[in-house]
Amino acid sequence: VTPQLFGNSSSNSNSSSPGTATVHWIGDKPAYQSGTTFGLPWPRGKHHSENTKFTISGDSSEQIELQSWVTGYWPDGSVKWSGHAIPESENIYNKYTVTAQNGTTSGLYTNPTGSLVVTNASDKLTIHTGKLQVSFPKAGSVLVSEIKTKSGKIIGNDGKLVLQSQSGVANDPSNRGNSSIQHFNFESSIEAVTVSEESSVRALVTIRGKHQVTRGGDHDNWLPFVVRFYLYANSDAIKLVHSIVFDAAANENFITGLGLRFAVPLAGEKQYNRHVRIAGVDGGVLNEAVQGITGLRRDPGAAVRTAQYDGAALAAESTWDPRVSSRLRWIPTFSDYILSQLSPDGFTLKKRTKAGQSWINIPGGTRAGGFAYLGGATQGGLAVGLRDFWKRYPSALEISSAATDVGEITLWLYSPEAQPLDLRPFHDGLGQKNYTDELDALDITYEDWEEGFDTPYGIARTSEITIFGFENTPSRDKLASLTEHINNPPVLVADSEYLKETEAIGTYWALPDTTSTASATIESHLEFLFEFYQEQIEQRRWYGFLDFGDFMHTYDPDRHTWRYDVGGYAWDNSELSPDLFFWLFFLRTGRADVYRFAEALTRHTGEVDVYHIGQWKGLGTRHGVQHFSDSAKQARISQPQYRKYFYYISGGDERVGELMEELLDTDKTYGVLDPNRKVRTDGWTPSPGSTVAIGLGTDWSSLAGGWLIEWERRGSRWEEAKSKLTSTITGIASLKNGFVTGSGLYSLENSTLGPPPTDPQNNGIVAVSHLSAVFGLPEVVSEAIEYFGADLPTGFKDAWLDYCYYFQATAAEQAARYGVSFGSLNLYQGHSRLTAYVANQRGNSSLGARAWREFYTTDGFQATSPWNTTRVEGSDVLAAVDEASWVSTNDVAQYGLAAIQNLALVRESLDDSVS
Amino acid sequence: VTPQLFGNSSSNSNSSSPGTATVHWIGDKPAYQSGTTFGLPWPRGKHHSENTKFTISGDSSEQIELQSWVTGYWPDGSVKWSGHAIPESENIYNKYTVTAQNGTTSGLYTNPTGSLVVTNASDKLTIHTGKLQVSFPKAGSVLVSEIKTKSGKIIGNDGKLVLQSQSGVANDPSNRGNSSIQHFNFESSIEAVTVSEESSVRALVTIRGKHQVTRGGDHDNWLPFVVRFYLYANSDAIKLVHSIVFDAAANENFITGLGLRFAVPLAGEKQYNRHVRIAGVDGGVLNEAVQGITGLRRDPGAAVRTAQYDGAALAAESTWDPRVSSRLRWIPTFSDYILSQLSPDGFTLKKRTKAGQSWINIPGGTRAGGFAYLGGATQGGLAVGLRDFWKRYPSALEISSAATDVGEITLWLYSPEAQPLDLRPFHDGLGQKNYTDELDALDITYEDWEEGFDTPYGIARTSEITIFGFENTPSRDKLASLTEHINNPPVLVADSEYLKETEAIGTYWALPDTTSTASATIESHLEFLFEFYQEQIEQRRWYGFLDFGDFMHTYDPDRHTWRYDVGGYAWDNSELSPDLFFWLFFLRTGRADVYRFAEALTRHTGEVDVYHIGQWKGLGTRHGVQHFSDSAKQARISQPQYRKYFYYISGGDERVGELMEELLDTDKTYGVLDPNRKVRTDGWTPSPGSTVAIGLGTDWSSLAGGWLIEWERRGSRWEEAKSKLTSTITGIASLKNGFVTGSGLYSLENSTLGPPPTDPQNNGIVAVSHLSAVFGLPEVVSEAIEYFGADLPTGFKDAWLDYCYYFQATAAEQAARYGVSFGSLNLYQGHSRLTAYVANQRGNSSLGARAWREFYTTDGFQATSPWNTTRVEGSDVLAAVDEASWVSTNDVAQYGLAAIQNLALVRESLDDSVS
Ligand SMILES: [Ca+2]
Ligand SMILES: [Ca+2]
Repeated sequence: VTPQLFGNSSSNSNSSSPGTATVHWIGDKPAYQSGTTFGLPWPRGKHHSENTKFTISGDSSEQIELQSWVTGYWPDGSVKWSGHAIPESENIYNKYTVTAQNGTTSGLYTNPTGSLVVTNASDKLTIHTGKLQVSFPKAGSVLVSEIKTKSGKIIGNDGKLVLQSQSGVANDPSNRGNSSIQHFNFESSIEAVTVSEESSVRALVTIRGKHQVTRGGDHDNWLPFVVRFYLYANSDAIKLVHSIVFDAAANENFITGLGLRFAVPLAGEKQYNRHVRIAGVDGGVLNEAVQGITGLRRDPGAAVRTAQYDGAALAAESTWDPRVSSRLRWIPTFSDYILSQLSPDGFTLKKRTKAGQSWINIPGGTRAGGFAYLGGATQGGLAVGLRDFWKRYPSALEISSAATDVGEITLWLYSPEAQPLDLRPFHDGLGQKNYTDELDALDITYEDWEEGFDTPYGIARTSEITIFGFENTPSRDKLASLTEHINNPPVLVADSEYLKETEAIGTYWALPDTTSTASATIESHLEFLFEFYQEQIEQRRWYGFLDFGDFMHTYDPDRHTWRYDVGGYAWDNSELSPDLFFWLFFLRTGRADVYRFAEALTRHTGEVDVYHIGQWKGLGTRHGVQHFSDSAKQARISQPQYRKYFYYISGGDERVGELMEELLDTDKTYGVLDPNRKVRTDGWTPSPGSTVAIGLGTDWSSLAGGWLIEWERRGSRWEEAKSKLTSTITGIASLKNGFVTGSGLYSLENSTLGPPPTDPQNNGIVAVSHLSAVFGLPEVVSEAIEYFGADLPTGFKDAWLDYCYYFQATAAEQAARYGVSFGSLNLYQGHSRLTAYVANQRGNSSLGARAWREFYTTDGFQATSPWNTTRVEGSDVLAAVDEASWVSTNDVAQYGLAAIQNLALVRESLDDSVS
Repeated sequence: VTPQLFGNSSSNSNSSSPGTATVHWIGDKPAYQSGTTFGLPWPRGKHHSENTKFTISGDSSEQIELQSWVTGYWPDGSVKWSGHAIPESENIYNKYTVTAQNGTTSGLYTNPTGSLVVTNASDKLTIHTGKLQVSFPKAGSVLVSEIKTKSGKIIGNDGKLVLQSQSGVANDPSNRGNSSIQHFNFESSIEAVTVSEESSVRALVTIRGKHQVTRGGDHDNWLPFVVRFYLYANSDAIKLVHSIVFDAAANENFITGLGLRFAVPLAGEKQYNRHVRIAGVDGGVLNEAVQGITGLRRDPGAAVRTAQYDGAALAAESTWDPRVSSRLRWIPTFSDYILSQLSPDGFTLKKRTKAGQSWINIPGGTRAGGFAYLGGATQGGLAVGLRDFWKRYPSALEISSAATDVGEITLWLYSPEAQPLDLRPFHDGLGQKNYTDELDALDITYEDWEEGFDTPYGIARTSEITIFGFENTPSRDKLASLTEHINNPPVLVADSEYLKETEAIGTYWALPDTTSTASATIESHLEFLFEFYQEQIEQRRWYGFLDFGDFMHTYDPDRHTWRYDVGGYAWDNSELSPDLFFWLFFLRTGRADVYRFAEALTRHTGEVDVYHIGQWKGLGTRHGVQHFSDSAKQARISQPQYRKYFYYISGGDERVGELMEELLDTDKTYGVLDPNRKVRTDGWTPSPGSTVAIGLGTDWSSLAGGWLIEWERRGSRWEEAKSKLTSTITGIASLKNGFVTGSGLYSLENSTLGPPPTDPQNNGIVAVSHLSAVFGLPEVVSEAIEYFGADLPTGFKDAWLDYCYYFQATAAEQAARYGVSFGSLNLYQGHSRLTAYVANQRGNSSLGARAWREFYTTDGFQATSPWNTTRVEGSDVLAAVDEASWVSTNDVAQYGLAAIQNLALVRESLDDSVS
């Protein structure tokens, strides 16, 4: 089926016929859902927010409470993407059907019957979910002042962020006593607290601030945070999305601990009724009491022992064997516990009676679930968990003072038992003194280094935390179930066919097609590539607080290792759009494992690889040994298109939405940083705030992607974004050689785009790069053309189709059209999707056949590539691995995108007999 | 077969017929042996050292160089145990036959033709193995000043011990900047260097000293060490047995790093020819060069790449692609590496270009082999490894300054990246004020606590290290092979039948017997118990720098965990002689896994659980949460009998020999510490240096065991030991009720043993304890009776046979004999071996049948016990485990000993149809 680009979507915006869409859980139906948000696309022109009412029902048609909002609009103002939240419920259905009923007057928000109550006082917000009442002060250090259960038990207090840092690190262990190193402690300091306007089913409390020093000397407030608290009707869970930005000098600020801490009131609870629960391996749980009454020399009675293990309140001491009850004072209470996951393979776990006494090894195991509970059998308690705990090592869970009146539970995103987080450069520049040296070095390590550019200043990290409140100590199985829940939070998604039919998320992909040998082979190759990367993450241990979510760029077959230590070949940082490939692979397969993989990628690349503040705000960093070490700061890395799929499918994840907003200022950065500074020969330099040079591929595609999203979202700057997008599209259309021109001068003052410095008269130059169309340009342009529809500035589509046609046209054709051929280029396999695009647009089957020839017979992967892995073990490697030395991530990304898009665009031209 | 206790061994000491004995490798034949020492027993009266010549041949009868010595003598002066060393050789045979040729005049030491040369100068020792020349200064901080290869390359310098400590630890992470904590660095400071007198095949250099502060302030020299270096003819390996004693206040001295460091000269070696090799998982190896030339943007040529990976010197740069050779200065050199095994499940591995730059994650894996190499392709290098590296976490291997003229390689027995070693008490006493409180607390947690007794002052730890020197960087496979070698050092042992026939190591065990249903069932139960403990070590993670080698005492079925946190139930500390059981289980099966298991147990219990210096020198500590936390300081724990099997089989392991010597002063300790002080009601107090009260079971058996061993060994105090043994044996024989008296007063002045304080007139009292005969007493007495032979003081054997007979005689029989019955006792199953002993001695088959009835139908394990494990998983436990909640270590030890000894002594009385 060749997709229709236009005209297929009905424009019956006034129709009263309801639209329906079905969502299902990815993977297995969860055993528990604590309130779920999801996104749904709608066809162009079908539903307008002002007169559409969304409702939802489960398998049984029973109506479920629903909160709805719009995350994206079609140009005509109709709903393109909606976001929805359902409350926690014990009834969990396989599928849910959302109905969009037009012609109502009540608008979107029609379910204010929820149990969720928001009270916004001058000094604090209070959210009552129906199960928990949570108070958020508007100032000070405490983010959550109180968590109270339905029955009135206060189970949590004083929830705050904690941070430790030091001013230096010892050069080696013998220097650890270095007295010049200062050690600082910090707590959260609130700057702003807001709550979502609409909170019928889901309330969102957003708290911004910085970490303020509390001990260790003077230190500026730093490490800005934004923590989003999601509370759902009927829920005993609070979901946090916790983000920080590194805003300090890396050589003077080393994080040694970063966490979230709650106090848990325990006064009045008997020591033997206080329970500690810590998630272990594969659903395992450590089940202990602060004062254990099992395993003693005398038996208090089986009922008492069993009750303690089960977390129930023990019967009155008078019912016990008096040989135990009379000697409770001799049974130590263990007040402190700490589980540290200092490697992705092993955690340690220990406890102590109190500070000043030795720790006792419990001990640990392989990979901890990242979840801990502290509370009492009668007074209830609090649990806190970190998603992907062991994958984000060094992490920790600490319980302290459990034998006192106020216990504490601390989730450490960065374990205080780990070595400091060291974000200094990994080398000293090796003596590189100027661009000549830098380009020479680039030619051997492929690292594009420049003094001062190897800085983490401005990178971010986002973590997902869940807090649960309990009336009593929950059962072991409940805690195991919640551990699974926090690590694999339930996700509702529409099926691939519906997603595709709405044409709301690209028309350049189609469902898997195994109807012919050729297509089935391609499908198997796509599966192979995904599964290979999934397994490489595990085998190569691509885990870590900052690292998890990325993979490597190029393999070193000699050493049987990815080039983790070779300049420009290490962390991939979205090079050539693997994000797009994996998201499209999810869209077409709906596989849960692909979703989790792509989600982790999005959470990493959008945060760690991008500057969120500072002089390079909006740019990302090219692939390198450290995520931020390369001097090529590029918009192509921060490309918002990479996060778009997750954003809409997630129902508008607010953190990702914020990242997209940040990127609206990326264009300004070109005023201070010319991406071509090292190789520019035309002498041009940028005029900050005035005129900047941008590439029509890697630069403009990212700016355009961001503008288009802002326009779709109708964000606060959407008119500005639409204007810039329209203006630059018009500019490109006006260039004599269109995209073939390669770059242009962009005015920061009026957003116009004119010819490049080398062609001020727009006589037409040819500057085609293999990189221009491999960072989202085809996807952004395709979506923009469709979005503008009839309003697309004249000439732009032709400029794009020309680029698509001529990139792999013959030299003669190129010369005939542009006066000069493009010469030897690269990444032809990936660019076959450009040929496919123009073939599809023009209904030209011989062009379609050309696309497939390019796909099969140029560069990249071949039909004759091995398409398998080889086991490497024994002394050849540190640990046994499966290698595919013929695979590079560049090829994977572009092969994947070409395969998916060619199948969507020129399926009918595929020779079905190719295997 | 009922063993004959006497008369079976020929006394042909003047015979000229040679004796032969065969040894084989435990487990598979090793791929490599770097020189091996082993022990062999000989029958009584066969060979005298002054006129016996030992020779050895392999499968081919080819004579092999052999160094021989005597480790134990029969009373008549004939050789009971010999020790032998063979050189490193590429010819490794399945078996070796040792021939003892009598009637020669050349004596034992007849193979001085070895390549091993010892030069003993005034300032240093130099040992030349034929492959390595190693220099040991006699003073200063450097233990090994130089290691030189055969071709004259200096591959190691400046080998010294390094230690870090701190004066306190932060109570919690927020206190880590606590400026009152001092950080100290120390190096070895030599006090004495000695070399073995005989060094034809094996030279032993023993270096003693303490750690002297080099940085951080004033600190006494502390943590005394003794490091034994074993060098074999023709060997490129140096084996170290490294022992330390903790001799400081635990609340002011926290070890933060303990290691062995060598300098590796690298000047002149090209950076790309410098190699780092670090053992990974399951024979895996990290293969890196300091300056990598693989994985670059430009290819120097396949031969160059392959050579670097292989550790070969690269061809001249002129042969490379000049695009690489011209740009070497832009390729970073990585100078520092560190692998840290901070949990038994995971290690991290990172490297950095140099201090001041960030580390790069390599990253790590699960369990590291504990072996690392630093050197050059042309200049050779040094490797160092720690046996049981991951089992002894937190351990580390560090390579530093590899890009400078002098690299360093440090083996950390305690990783500087770990939390400090905290040996403080685990609780504060819980308010216990006097013996009344202590006994009351004992009644609930089973912990016998007393103020000040929970101290590690005087405990020790021994580690096995191997150093290898190389002319060039060795192959990957060679390094993997050496990693296997250091973790499973080849062991030569005689087969069980021979060991038994010589009667040199007890006559209370026999070979496995599966000839009947009953005996086969017992054999299967013994196997079950061993394999269960072997697996529990893994599942319960009984690993750690101090912990490895021990297991726990009692299970808590309610929590599905061993009682690691309950006072007297945690670490077993040899309670009821599991050491004896597992060693006897090895003797009869010859299984390699049993040997490794028992060896680790011996290395732990003899070191960590015993005080080696200080006021309680010679005593061990009863089972508890910490190895040293219980106040019951007991000779029964330090019982030298537990180490005897390993000592002789190993050819006289010098560290264990030293431990046995230390114990010769244990009797003095009773002058300062009465083991019965808390429960004594007779008002007696010890007179230091004069008269002390000792139990005839738990105390005397340990003293007697030590005296007997010293006599056998003909150690420097053997006549004193023989005298004390004879005197106390005479004393026991003189007690009216013999062993039934329970205790006696021992004179430190003249070593006499008289009646206890409660029976000064030796009228005869009855004080039978279930504990007297479960800490080696039957085994020591059996061996002593045989050893004395005809010279055994009169009455002693009868006293022992009476004890054996009456322990489980009827109350009427007891009363008839002693005027009173023994009352209700305990551990009857284990004591069935006492009945078996007397049955065997008297040839009384009805007594034999009584022994089996006691074995099957009293306490302990029953035929109807489950004899299996149950899987416990999911949320019931931290991580899935197999539990046998019906098993206690006490029962295991005593069941195992009774089963083995009953089968040896009264096999013919076993009802073969029992299943
Ligand atoms: Ca990255
Ligand atoms: Ca122990």
